[in-house]
Amino acid sequence: MEILQKEFELKSYKRGFHLITDEVIQNLDEISKFEVGVLNLFIKHTSASLTINENCDSSVRSDMENFVNDIVSNKNYFTHTYEGEDDMPSHIKSSVFGSSITIPITKGQLNLGTWQGIYLGEHRDFGGNRKLLATITGKKYNL
Amino acid sequence: MEILQKEFELKSYKRGFHLITDEVIQNLDEISKFEVGVLNLFIKHTSASLTINENCDSSVRSDMENFVNDIVSNKNYFTHTYEGEDDMPSHIKSSVFGSSITIPITKGQLNLGTWQGIYLGEHRDFGGNRKLLATITGKKYNL
Amino acid sequence: MEILQKEFELKSYKRGFHLITDEVIQNLDEISKFEVGVLNLFIKHTSASLTINENCDSSVRSDMENFVNDIVSNKNYFTHTYEGEDDMPSHIKSSVFGSSITIPITKGQLNLGTWQGIYLGEHRDFGGNRKLLATITGKKYNL
Repeated sequence: MEILQKEFELKSYKRGFHLITDEVIQNLDEISKFEVGVLNLFIKHTSASLTINENCDSSVRSDMENFVNDIVSNKNYFTHTYEGEDDMPSHIKSSVFGSSITIPITKGQLNLGTWQGIYLGEHRDFGGNRKLLATITGKKYNL
Repeated sequence: MEILQKEFELKSYKRGFHLITDEVIQNLDEISKFEVGVLNLFIKHTSASLTINENCDSSVRSDMENFVNDIVSNKNYFTHTYEGEDDMPSHIKSSVFGSSITIPITKGQLNLGTWQGIYLGEHRDFGGNRKLLATITGKKYNL
Repeated sequence: MEILQKEFELKSYKRGFHLITDEVIQNLDEISKFEVGVLNLFIKHTSASLTINENCDSSVRSDMENFVNDIVSNKNYFTHTYEGEDDMPSHIKSSVFGSSITIPITKGQLNLGTWQGIYLGEHRDFGGNRKLLATITGKKYNL
């Protein structure tokens, strides 16, 4: 059993849900060395989130963004509004979708279902480059 | 320390929340071999979810189903609707409740609270047999 | 690689979201012994939740509480209401925010972002002392 940890930055994304599976894998060559394991991917921010969803049709991402804005935005009782209208809603979305995901690794690859991809939920209008912290626990291939 | 991975299929369930604790345990005899560990249970689909909730009264499951339908259904701005009215809502519910749960293992058993059980959130009308991928990391009993 | 498990009780909190980072760390001296690892923190209840959010301004916690009450309370279709108006909503909030969080450990500390803290979501009016089960998996410092 081994454990490995690596921090990396994502590209900057505009507000919305974005498919980042390829970008995550490109930053984590190390996955290929594990015969079996789990990847914990943790986002070090409170106004963005990580989740798993459909990897094919971008309409899922835009519908999800429209839905969360419909439900969470413009509540007249919000008081944490220093940084604008996207401030408090971004914190709520962050906790609803969550700060980390755990994905099994099998034979050197993320063992996702056919239609599963990794989503970044960027909940600020200008969130900048988000830092991810990856921790892989598992058994490496015998060399 | 050891790691063990196993994929299995659930029975087919109708749309709603279902208590699957017993079915999960029946598929994972291996839990009993771990003195201490964690089980990551991952669902390989984007229109179903896993969560932990009350294991006794079925009214919790039906109230949860009525609630999510109340909040997520029939939004006129949804565009990802090829597969019917349950299509886009199922993706949203999948991310709100999540694709995986992590449960501690203690002395060969899932260390759940008295009232905790494992729920499958089946968010499609006809979701079929859902695939779960279990990864257990921990320390086995000395034999 | 080593694994370590410990159960402890939180102080009693009133209904709402509460910053418990310091209380968690005080109960988990063991974190300091791990050079690299992951902490899984699991709450053994179905009417409370754990999540990560902003650690500075208490208005985030009160706005979150007002938001979830706005969305989840007083649905006339709820049937699981034996224990009062906070009963069924507490179960829903528990699953939306989740029963466990996973936090990376680096060089003997929780590797949280600058603004991240651990929240207890206490969703009952009188929830009492909540039990947490911590499991740390990782590599200890060489002594």
